[in-house]
Amino acid sequence: MSREKVKQFVETRFVQNFIVILIILNSISIGFETSENIMLSIGNTLLLFDKIILFIFVIEISLKLYAYGSSFFKSGWNVFDFSIVIIALLPTSGSLAILRSLRIFRSLRLLKNLPKLRFIVESLFHSLPSLGWIFVLLALVFYVFAVIGTKLFSAEFPEWFGSLGASMFSLFQIMTLEGWAEISRTIMIKYPLAYIYFIVFILLASYTTLNIFIAIVVNTMSEVQLRVSSEGVNKIENLIQDENEELKNDIKKIKEQIINLEQKMLKK
Amino acid sequence: MSREKVKQFVETRFVQNFIVILIILNSISIGFETSENIMLSIGNTLLLFDKIILFIFVIEISLKLYAYGSSFFKSGWNVFDFSIVIIALLPTSGSLAILRSLRIFRSLRLLKNLPKLRFIVESLFHSLPSLGWIFVLLALVFYVFAVIGTKLFSAEFPEWFGSLGASMFSLFQIMTLEGWAEISRTIMIKYPLAYIYFIVFILLASYTTLNIFIAIVVNTMSEVQLRVSSEGVNKIENLIQDENEELKNDIKKIKEQIINLEQKMLKK
Amino acid sequence: MSREKVKQFVETRFVQNFIVILIILNSISIGFETSENIMLSIGNTLLLFDKIILFIFVIEISLKLYAYGSSFFKSGWNVFDFSIVIIALLPTSGSLAILRSLRIFRSLRLLKNLPKLRFIVESLFHSLPSLGWIFVLLALVFYVFAVIGTKLFSAEFPEWFGSLGASMFSLFQIMTLEGWAEISRTIMIKYPLAYIYFIVFILLASYTTLNIFIAIVVNTMSEVQLRVSSEGVNKIENLIQDENEELKNDIKKIKEQIINLEQKMLKK
Amino acid sequence: MSREKVKQFVETRFVQNFIVILIILNSISIGFETSENIMLSIGNTLLLFDKIILFIFVIEISLKLYAYGSSFFKSGWNVFDFSIVIIALLPTSGSLAILRSLRIFRSLRLLKNLPKLRFIVESLFHSLPSLGWIFVLLALVFYVFAVIGTKLFSAEFPEWFGSLGASMFSLFQIMTLEGWAEISRTIMIKYPLAYIYFIVFILLASYTTLNIFIAIVVNTMSEVQLRVSSEGVNKIENLIQDENEELKNDIKKIKEQIINLEQKMLKK
Repeated sequence: MSREKVKQFVETRFVQNFIVILIILNSISIGFETSENIMLSIGNTLLLFDKIILFIFVIEISLKLYAYGSSFFKSGWNVFDFSIVIIALLPTSGSLAILRSLRIFRSLRLLKNLPKLRFIVESLFHSLPSLGWIFVLLALVFYVFAVIGTKLFSAEFPEWFGSLGASMFSLFQIMTLEGWAEISRTIMIKYPLAYIYFIVFILLASYTTLNIFIAIVVNTMSEVQLRVSSEGVNKIENLIQDENEELKNDIKKIKEQIINLEQKMLKK
Repeated sequence: MSREKVKQFVETRFVQNFIVILIILNSISIGFETSENIMLSIGNTLLLFDKIILFIFVIEISLKLYAYGSSFFKSGWNVFDFSIVIIALLPTSGSLAILRSLRIFRSLRLLKNLPKLRFIVESLFHSLPSLGWIFVLLALVFYVFAVIGTKLFSAEFPEWFGSLGASMFSLFQIMTLEGWAEISRTIMIKYPLAYIYFIVFILLASYTTLNIFIAIVVNTMSEVQLRVSSEGVNKIENLIQDENEELKNDIKKIKEQIINLEQKMLKK
Repeated sequence: MSREKVKQFVETRFVQNFIVILIILNSISIGFETSENIMLSIGNTLLLFDKIILFIFVIEISLKLYAYGSSFFKSGWNVFDFSIVIIALLPTSGSLAILRSLRIFRSLRLLKNLPKLRFIVESLFHSLPSLGWIFVLLALVFYVFAVIGTKLFSAEFPEWFGSLGASMFSLFQIMTLEGWAEISRTIMIKYPLAYIYFIVFILLASYTTLNIFIAIVVNTMSEVQLRVSSEGVNKIENLIQDENEELKNDIKKIKEQIINLEQKMLKK
Repeated sequence: MSREKVKQFVETRFVQNFIVILIILNSISIGFETSENIMLSIGNTLLLFDKIILFIFVIEISLKLYAYGSSFFKSGWNVFDFSIVIIALLPTSGSLAILRSLRIFRSLRLLKNLPKLRFIVESLFHSLPSLGWIFVLLALVFYVFAVIGTKLFSAEFPEWFGSLGASMFSLFQIMTLEGWAEISRTIMIKYPLAYIYFIVFILLASYTTLNIFIAIVVNTMSEVQLRVSSEGVNKIENLIQDENEELKNDIKKIKEQIINLEQKMLKK
């Protein structure tokens, strides 16, 4: 079969919908595997079903690889799709519960294969660059406070500030405002001035995340505004040009009238 | 009585206000029923009052059914209204505390019968379709993390991740940021890398709900913008047309002057 | 002294600033009274200082009452000011710690006497009417869930849902997402389906408060938009009128030229 | 070396990038110092490295001081940069763990030396003045509630409301909604009406912070709007002027035609 024909085949609406349905069925079957009762009764059927679907996925990707050749990997989405199927083919020995559990990542193929979801995810990646430096600022705030927290509190409160990593996690927790008061009050018994550390961090972290939020809203809104505004401008411009076209025609006729008049005069 | 007359009657402002007042009174009386002291003293009166109001509601709905015929059910609000009254007529035997408690749903008839509330609720349903796919994305994130969480943690932490349902509830709790740190720290004692699972989920869930929020704000704002912008455009367009009308009239007069001049010249 | 002169006196910048400074000093002195150590050393001085300031406030209000007569009470801010001074004059016997503590409300006079603060507070009251019906919706959601919660859970969990009032407080707590999971998980041990009640309430309450938030943002933004838009429209309108004025003058001159030409022709 | 040459030298892209890299390396090395294992093995190297970098920083600042003279301190950013290096030079005796930990503040020099971060931070300071009075309002709300809380609850609940400072911290905690229900329910056992205090405070604090948030959003958005709107207005203005230029030229030609005609007539 020629590459062109294979390409046409894998791109038919029927094949694409078939793959989407398989992804959904596979997601459900992997979900069923979490229930011990279901596994005891129809576990073997589920595992067989899983293998069949994986087999179809492998065939689909192989066909695409054949059809598109090396240009297949130029799309980030194809790489994403390919990696997920490859992960599923890795040997999962008994102890690697984590790798087995990652099979559910196949559900994420829906992100690529449902156009609306793909659009939402692409919007996300589209808006990330403009947020980049705010994340750098947030990272800097985190790092500075993690170092200070570790230096000051690691000896007394190793659970929360025992190492840079532990401090980072505690600061993330404090940024979500979950249980920050308990941590803060406990440390303030030993270091009464520690409230400065916590309140300053909360204010800075809130301000920075607020900026991230505002950046996203303003980005989205200003696009809407530009579109609405340029629609209005276009409408007015068209009207001005149409109206002035009429005026120019009127003036042109006057010119002709005058020339006409002149000629008549000269003839006399 | 003819259908037309019944329709006119149930649509009079007086009848509609009367029904609104009955709904409010009934809501209050059902509220009183929650107090044991009040029930001991005037419980029977309250229950009688409740039955009388329900009787009036049934008559009102019957009249509307007679007046509008089958077209009554074409409005979703009428179906809503009808269902609430039907629920109240179901036999509520002693043990079904839940069904009895649902009688308070009659208060929700206010959503239909107070136009301002109806408008707010209709705005909600109006904005839901544009949010649909973000909810699909959120559901996908929940499902994938629930399956992973159940596979990894169900054996050790059955209370939080014992089944898909339990995991979903725990993830909803974590999304609200309530007590997430406690769950996370407990699990991290056994699985030190579990912080990846929790932080990634919180970031993804926050980002997706942020998107829902932004979608609602942008929808509402862009409508306002379109209205403000088109008002401005209309104003300018009217001015341009008025001004150019004057110019055209001026030019027309010049034409006439020239024709006039021409005629006079020719006469000479 | 004539009413007019008193009015001029109490409205001088000097008197107004003097009152603002007194309010601030009084706020600080009442703050000092919370410290036992300070009260032991200079308590009597503080209480005397408090009485002197209160005396000045009474004189100020009396002057204003004399100057403005009954029209004094037409301004809500004056009533507010007047009530706060009156509350301070109430006899506060030893046991009424609450009434004594309310003396700090005098600080709130700053809301009236600092124009910028008054503006912010007035903006609040200005935006309340447009929010009214959303608050009605929120109250309805609270009432319905409070009645259901009380009927279902009052027997087993009196602390949280023992009465309509207790349920309302618990629902407010759940709306702030503080400790909702603990309440919910405890109740779910007895009523496994209670999660429906809590999750539906959280979603409804979040949606409604989100609407309140959006209503405020949209109100504020649409005013800004209208102003920006009408500035742009005015600028364009002025330009069009100026430009067309020139065109009309040009055309007028042509008319005159033609009339001039006509006359010259006729003279020949 | 002349001042001008030194100025040119410290402003070269190479020197600036070199300083940025040193700041980042120094931040990492200070981070390493938090780990006991790393300190045991290469602690002396790290401390030496730290001293070398500090030495380079001192030289850099000295060069800048020489190059710019007293005008160096006119920029707030230079004062910031200068202070951070000075703090690092303070003698840090063994017990002052806090001062040693503040060395990490050197990382904050990135805020000045990375232009994008500087822009974000400058935007913050730029937007602060317009927020000033809302912060005064928030401070007033905090102060009034802190005084009331201390007067009412200090005797029974010294941990939360023992002094004005403790009350302020508790109110900040309640504003973040963290653990407010626990505090409130505990106090309500003794003072059943205390819920009024907490709910009113939460509503006021939420409303005020909401206003801060809205003020920032509206500030940012209205700048975007002004820019978009004035772009549209400019485009329309240019079109009107261009079009009318043509019309005026046309009319000018008519005038010349008429003059031309007149002259020909008169010659005849």
